[in-house]
Order: sequence, then C-alpha cells, then structure tokens
Amino acid sequence: MRHTRPLADGGAAVNAEPFDAVDVIRAKRDGGAVPEAELRWMVDAYTRGYVADAQMAAFAMAVLLNGMDRDEIRVLTEAMIASGERMSFAGLGKRTVDKHSTGGVGDKITLPLAPLVASFGVAVPQLSGRGLGHTGGTLDKLESIPGWRAALSNDELTTQLRDVGAVVCAAGSGLAPADKKLYALRDVTGTVEAIPLIASSIMSKKIAEGTDALVLDVKFGSGAFMREPERARELARTMVALGTDSGVATTALLTNMETPLGFAIGNANEVRESVEVLAGGGPADIVELTLALAREMLALAGLPDADVEGTLREGRAMDSWRSMIRAQGGDPDAALPVARETHVVTAPRAGYITRMDALSFGVAAWRLGAGRARAQDPVIHAAGIDLHVKPGDAVVAGAPVMTLSADDPARFARALDALGSAWDIGETPPDSVPLVLERVTA
Amino acid sequence: MRHTRPLADGGAAVNAEPFDAVDVIRAKRDGGAVPEAELRWMVDAYTRGYVADAQMAAFAMAVLLNGMDRDEIRVLTEAMIASGERMSFAGLGKRTVDKHSTGGVGDKITLPLAPLVASFGVAVPQLSGRGLGHTGGTLDKLESIPGWRAALSNDELTTQLRDVGAVVCAAGSGLAPADKKLYALRDVTGTVEAIPLIASSIMSKKIAEGTDALVLDVKFGSGAFMREPERARELARTMVALGTDSGVATTALLTNMETPLGFAIGNANEVRESVEVLAGGGPADIVELTLALAREMLALAGLPDADVEGTLREGRAMDSWRSMIRAQGGDPDAALPVARETHVVTAPRAGYITRMDALSFGVAAWRLGAGRARAQDPVIHAAGIDLHVKPGDAVVAGAPVMTLSADDPARFARALDALGSAWDIGETPPDSVPLVLERVTA
Repeated sequence: MRHTRPLADGGAAVNAEPFDAVDVIRAKRDGGAVPEAELRWMVDAYTRGYVADAQMAAFAMAVLLNGMDRDEIRVLTEAMIASGERMSFAGLGKRTVDKHSTGGVGDKITLPLAPLVASFGVAVPQLSGRGLGHTGGTLDKLESIPGWRAALSNDELTTQLRDVGAVVCAAGSGLAPADKKLYALRDVTGTVEAIPLIASSIMSKKIAEGTDALVLDVKFGSGAFMREPERARELARTMVALGTDSGVATTALLTNMETPLGFAIGNANEVRESVEVLAGGGPADIVELTLALAREMLALAGLPDADVEGTLREGRAMDSWRSMIRAQGGDPDAALPVARETHVVTAPRAGYITRMDALSFGVAAWRLGAGRARAQDPVIHAAGIDLHVKPGDAVVAGAPVMTLSADDPARFARALDALGSAWDIGETPPDSVPLVLERVTA
Repeated sequence: MRHTRPLADGGAAVNAEPFDAVDVIRAKRDGGAVPEAELRWMVDAYTRGYVADAQMAAFAMAVLLNGMDRDEIRVLTEAMIASGERMSFAGLGKRTVDKHSTGGVGDKITLPLAPLVASFGVAVPQLSGRGLGHTGGTLDKLESIPGWRAALSNDELTTQLRDVGAVVCAAGSGLAPADKKLYALRDVTGTVEAIPLIASSIMSKKIAEGTDALVLDVKFGSGAFMREPERARELARTMVALGTDSGVATTALLTNMETPLGFAIGNANEVRESVEVLAGGGPADIVELTLALAREMLALAGLPDADVEGTLREGRAMDSWRSMIRAQGGDPDAALPVARETHVVTAPRAGYITRMDALSFGVAAWRLGAGRARAQDPVIHAAGIDLHVKPGDAVVAGAPVMTLSADDPARFARALDALGSAWDIGETPPDSVPLVLERVTA
C-alpha cells in the first residue's frame, strides 16, 4: 500500500536519504512534474547505486509514456552533467563548435565537415562514439586508416584543437557517467525512445564537453532514430532549448534519412568517399549536407560569411584533414583495406531507381560485417556496400546497382535477404525530396 | 536503436530463449496486447531470473499506464499459477469456499466468518498474510492468542479442513512464486496500483490454492487500496471474471472503508471483538459484513438458505472457533495481552461524531505498534485503538472517544499527530452510508 509510505513510522530506522524513489516514480507515473530537488536526487542516487535499476526503469517508462516539461528536462540534463567532470576549452583562444548527428546510414559527414570548419580557424572538438546496430560510428570509420587512434588524453585533445583545429576522438568515461548507466538500462528496458531521455542524454555529454556552440543534425525517416519528422522536430526543439538554457549556442537541422547518404555504406569506403568530397568532388547529397552544417557552425562561431562552398570545391580543407589524421597517428596516404569478396547486384529491368530504404541498406551493411551487434564486437573495416546509382537515376537491364563487400562470401545471402524489398525500379523517376527539411533555432 | 533488434545479426551468438523481453515491453508500451506465448514466456523467464528486475519493472509500469485486456489478464494469471504448485482439496468430500479482502482498517471479519461458515459443514481454507503499513494482517491478529501458530504443512491443512472445517494459516511459499517475486518488485517501483497486476496477484494465489469458490470483499474509501468505488468495481469485475474463467465460482461485494470497521483497531483487541461477535454480540457493522459475506459463501457452497443470522446470534459458531484455535496450538480461553500504557482521547465539545477517517486511524494504530513498516519487523499485539463511539453517535463534552494502547508512552504523540484531523464533531449526525455498496457477479 504505497500511499502509506510518506507516513512511515520512523522509529529506530534512520534513513539518511532525503527522498524516496517510489515517491518520485509515483509523481511522474501520475502525470505530474517531478520537483527539482527530487529529480536531482533521483539521478544522483541512481549513479551512486542507492536507487536500483528496477526503480529507474519504472521511472524511465513513466517518463516515456507521460513526458516531461521543459524545466524537468533541464534539471535532468543538469543532474547528468553534475554526475561527472566538466571540460573547458576557455583557455584555447578560439571559438569551439561541435556537431552532433542523431545517426543514420552512410552518414560520414563529420569526416569532411570537421576539417572544413577547422580550416577557418575554428576549433572543432568532435567527441564521438562507435556504431551499434545498423548505424555506423565515426570512430569505426576512421579506424579504417592504418595507425589512426581514437583515444586521446585531455591534454592531447587540447593541444590538437589548438594546433590543428579539428579533433575526432572517443569521449572520455568521465563525462556524464549517469548517462552512461542510464543509457545501458534504457537499451534493455524498452525505454530508449523517450524524447526527454534522448535529449538529456545527448545534451548532457555535449554541455559537459564544454563547447561554445553546437549544431545538431536531427534525422528522420526509415534509417533514423525518429521515423516521423514531427518527432524529430520535437527532439530538435527540446535539444536546442536545452543547449540555449545552458549557455551553449545551439541550432539544429532536420534532415532526411529515408535514403542512405552518399554512395558508400561501411567504414573504409566511407573514408574514401569523404576524401573525394574534401578533394572537391563526391556525391551531391554529402556535399550539400556538409556545406549546410558548416554554414551553421561557422555562423555560430561568428563567421556567417565564410566561403565554405569555394573552400570545399577547391580542396582547401584537405590540409586540415591530413593534419588531423596525422596528429592521431594515422597515415593519410596509406592504402585503405579492401574486402576479399565482392558481389554485384544488377538491375532486373530498365527504369528509374525510385526508392532505396535506408534502414534495409544499414542492416545489410551490418550483416556484411560493417556493424556490430554487441558493443564488444569488432567491425570489418573493408565490409560494406557501394551504390552505383541512387533514387532518381536511370538504369538499363543488367546494369550494376550496387557492390557488396565482405571477407566471407557466406555473409552475402543474409545481406541480400535484407535488401530483398529494399529498393525499387519504376517507370518514372520519383519526386525529389529536400535533404534539409528545416532549421530549428532558439 | 531498438528497432534493429529483431534484425540482429545472429552470427555465432546463439540465444535459446524464444522471445526478447524488450519486444514484450515495447508491445505493451505502445498500447498493444501482448501475444499469449510472449506473456507466458515473460513471466516464466522472470521467475527463472532470465528477465531482469529492471525489465519487469518497465513492463509493470507500462501495464499500469496502458492497461491489459481480459485475455491478457487471464494469461498473466495462468502464467503466475504455472510458476508454482497447485493444491487440490478434491479428496476432502466437502465444498471449499474461501474469502479474500483487499484490506482495510479494523477488518477482522475473517475471524468470526471462517468458523461461522465452517459450522455449516463447508470447508474454509483461509490462506492469509501479515499486515504491512496501516492495514492489519489476519495472522498477526491471531498470533495474539497464546500458543497459536500460523504455519501448517499441507497435510495439517487438509486434516484440519476435514476435521474442523475452518483453517486460517500462512500461505505456503510454493504457491505462485512468480507473484511473490513480482509483488516485491512492484512494492519498490511504484507499480502496485495496476488493476491487472493486483487482480492477477490475488487470483493466482487463490486459484492455485484449489478452492471451489471464492467471495471477494473489495473495499473502497480512505482506508482501502482503492479510494474510488469506480476503481474498486473495476478490480472486482476483473477478479470475478478471472475466477469464473478458471472454474472457481466467484462473487464480490464492494464495501465501504471510509470508516474503521468495528470499535477495535489493533491485534489482541480485534480478537476480543471477534469473540464478542461469535458470542452473539459485537458491533453492528462487523455483524452486518460477516453475515453478508457468509451468505455469499454459503450460496456458492450450495446452501443459499442457511440460517447464518440465527447461528451467529445464538453463538452456535463458537465451537468451530474454539476447535480452529486449538487445532493450531492456541488456547481459546487464555488471557490476551494487555498494553502497559493507555491514553484516553475525549470529546472537546458536545455534538455528533460526523467522521472518522479510516486511513488516519490505521496509521495511528500502526504508530502505536500494532503494524509494521518492514516485513521483518514484529508487531506489538496489545497495541492499538479502542473506539468508544462511531460516526452518528452523540457525545457530551469530556466524554471518552477512544483509548490508545501502547507499551511505550512515547508512541502516543505520533499517533495523536495522525489523529489530529482524522475525526470531527458536528451539530447534526452525518447521513448514513451503506456498508455494502453492491454485489458483483459473473
């Protein structure tokens, strides 16, 4: 009988905790806002292990189903930041601007973007993660480059930011440990998809990282975390408000993830495609999104008129890329790994490619070995998919549509299963859809 | 990214479990019905420890907020029954009828009721629990009687049912172990108040116990589990349907728990009051509810015309009571414990008692020592409250309203705190409200 709890007979039992997890859970369960002190206590007590996983799981489900108001999300985020260390780049003498993508298929934008923005004298600290499931991870892609290492000390990070400007490295374990614990719990309790929890998870790490400004690439569509643009918009608005409230200049772009980005889906092949973009070429969608995000980042850094298009087209960001790779032990001229086996998929008839479903292509690349099912698994850097055409392109019967790469030909069958109904050929080209749907600002 | 899970790359990892807890949680979270095989697996895998507490807590919260349909509740109940042993009284040669109350303040009805019904040749197996919080427990009350013991083996239970007819004893740990584990989890995760979970918890134990018929006393009001009659009605209907679907003839009464039942709230004093009722006297409300429940039980046992009123009034159930107490080692003639300290509360002015709030009186008795805050705490059998008047009664200024009893006078202050605004004196008597609001049948 839970309603007796606040009246409990103190007696000899002394409890040094100021609140009771059941009261906090009940407040959210019954649709109310959790008072600030209770919410801060809940996060702190969970991080300490006083509040049990089961209690936090029930709370997370109540948050998913009943939501949180803007103040609650702010307090939750602050409490997660307070659970760990806070970094600062204040002594750097440069503006720092970070970019975060909610994840997609073929999303290698960080690779050309960080050196492009850094080439304008702005510091870009990209603390990144690894892939899990069908979405790739920026660190996995860069580890295709012989010698490159993801782990940097805070001193190395600061030195590289000062000397090179662009850094892509693994986030240290000291940032927002409450989020680390809560994320692992959400993953196994069906509570990942709560906007207050997603927003506070992402933003607590970004705010703790100490960046001056942040641009969010919030994706919607089949290959994205949020399928519906409305949900992506709500997430974007929530995160922009959180960043702004915390003194981090934040904007967001809502971008389409129905179709894989670029032609390469994997790891080594995505690095190759990124280098093409830095050399002034590359797929139109990668160039478009890189430029759109670079403009947002540079505007927040006080350079709204920077000539990002000319700089990219003329290959002037390539020096920043090479410096960035070298600074972390990588050889930008080394050959990237190539898979032992390939399988070419051809068009069964003539027509136009009308659809390529991002999720299915992500799953297929994953099954080829480009992704991992468990955090501790390795990825096969040479595995993946190279598209030869994209939606809107015309094909003749027998024309190559894509090449699958793997180290073990046994993997092709399961990848082809995932691709079975993942793409279509039609009589007429599909309507084109905008890649960037809208901007979200404070 | 949870939506990748069903597509996970099998590879070398072999998982012998047919389902994934996250899929089950997500089904309920998203408002759907959980398919039968998945729900049975979830309960079984939780009992085995494969599904974690955190996963079941998230599932329980989703059930609380999104509900379950009648089929899901039936499957959940069957799965909890299947987690343990099933008893049977088929060889007894008597009809068995059980009663279950959802709990209240001053609710000692089982004590006169079981021997009364048994005196008609019906077997009454009352597998009971202990009190927690402000609600008393039948076993705690009977343990006031010197020598009486709650624990019986299955053989002792069957023998006593055959020879005496009435048994009040502790439920064995073999019945519905899934419920035991789930109930402890719900208690700390704010998920107690879900009707599907309450109904399946109560009914799984009652059905596993093997009774032929069951009468439910579902209480509403301040001192009850459900404050609103509507919620109590929903719970009653759910449980009656569950019992009926499982072949247990089940009816329910919705009864008022705004005011404590009878004049005694505690343990030893409730036994004294029950013996008065068995002797043909006692408070009118206890007599009324005992008779109403006895009529329901005897009707289900095929004796709709049994003269329960005459039997009770003329003290003819007392022999069954004495046999029942003796069979479990108790001395029905022994003196019951008396508290060392008493404190009398008097009326500050003349008028009518208009209200006595059941929850507050329950909490006050608890603070006097009659209840426990933790399952492992002892109770003080002599502690409690004896009312001298009830709502509707007239008092003069200075008249005794109640006597508090405790072993330590330091407890009076906190009990009086709970009683501060728990009762009123007015100019006119309150409207009388029916004790039994309605019957719920299949």
